[in-house]
Amino acid sequence: MAAPRYKLVYFDVRGKCEPLRWMFAYSGVAFDDHRIKELPYYVSEDPKPEWTALQPKTPFGAVPVLEVDGKYLAEAGAIARYLAKPLGLSGADEWEFAQADSIICYLSSEFEAPFLEFIREMDPGKKEEARAKVLAKLPKITETIERILQENNSATTGNGFIIGSAVTIADFFVVNYHELADTFLRPGCLDRNKVLTAHRERIRALPGIREFIQKHAHLAF
Amino acid sequence: MAAPRYKLVYFDVRGKCEPLRWMFAYSGVAFDDHRIKELPYYVSEDPKPEWTALQPKTPFGAVPVLEVDGKYLAEAGAIARYLAKPLGLSGADEWEFAQADSIICYLSSEFEAPFLEFIREMDPGKKEEARAKVLAKLPKITETIERILQENNSATTGNGFIIGSAVTIADFFVVNYHELADTFLRPGCLDRNKVLTAHRERIRALPGIREFIQKHAHLAF
Repeated sequence: MAAPRYKLVYFDVRGKCEPLRWMFAYSGVAFDDHRIKELPYYVSEDPKPEWTALQPKTPFGAVPVLEVDGKYLAEAGAIARYLAKPLGLSGADEWEFAQADSIICYLSSEFEAPFLEFIREMDPGKKEEARAKVLAKLPKITETIERILQENNSATTGNGFIIGSAVTIADFFVVNYHELADTFLRPGCLDRNKVLTAHRERIRALPGIREFIQKHAHLAF
Repeated sequence: MAAPRYKLVYFDVRGKCEPLRWMFAYSGVAFDDHRIKELPYYVSEDPKPEWTALQPKTPFGAVPVLEVDGKYLAEAGAIARYLAKPLGLSGADEWEFAQADSIICYLSSEFEAPFLEFIREMDPGKKEEARAKVLAKLPKITETIERILQENNSATTGNGFIIGSAVTIADFFVVNYHELADTFLRPGCLDRNKVLTAHRERIRALPGIREFIQKHAHLAF
């Protein structure tokens, strides 16, 4: 049976899709990195023919979606978990995979949900309130992630990753948490968190990831 | 190898844990339904010796957690996915499982995140604002879920469930969405949504689920 041809659809920004692109870049599995060259409604009033045609076909009216054999899978976390095994990023066993899953869930509910409210808010005053609300959440989230990183790396299996001794999908979502905060909330806001920062540099320097980042360095966000 | 002994830890309420309890109840797999008989800090100032001792041992300072061989797995979605295959609730193939996963993710980000902000808000004025904010989200979420239910049930494989032709983890999370809204936001708020309501009744009537609900009918929420 031929391997499926994966098509990942998103806008031409890092955003929610970047951990999924890094999964492909690191694993070396080819994929169609399809980028809609249109801006979201809350940024620009330009016509959006491609997005207007695609949106009603997506399960929840949102991207990223993964297209496999003409069918769509939505939600970044679900896409990551679906691809984790074929791309070799699912940890050593089902327990490690479940731990990686739980970290992605935690970041989604604690960070991503209020972060998206901030991103989508167009009223300047309310936007600053929303920014402050997300910034106030960062210390606890960061402390939790740093503790898990340290616990894993003091263990005999630790090798600089958040789960077990190899890269899993959770590493890419942890770095994305860091980079979304740094890009949109306040540049440098997590620079003082040395454990998190060292992990980010480690992941960014991985073969495949480094080249992918360089190729897309022109993107402002 | 002996099957692991599963221990599910939560407070003595339905909340985030109910879909996980229903997974066990429906599959018939025995589990320790451990209920901490203490109230959350935002409800009561009574001492909480059990929770105070447990909380720092949980990965993210929150329940539910699943204890397996003395180790904890956190986050309801991750627990559901970890248990789905052993409990026979993972759909017909990896694609169906991924679709179930994506529905749980969608409900988590669109409903659960703002719902928890509402639940945890103690200022009466802000609580009403938070309630209104979640209520405003219900029509779009409900419409999306009803569309997926209808699409699945007009297909030849449909049998009244949200994915494929058998119960999956997603069915239990969809019902929990409905019941959390009905219990905490506004009783009857989704009664007019006939497709969703019929699905809820169908799931509640399943063998194992019906008996579990009757046994815990004394719980107010």
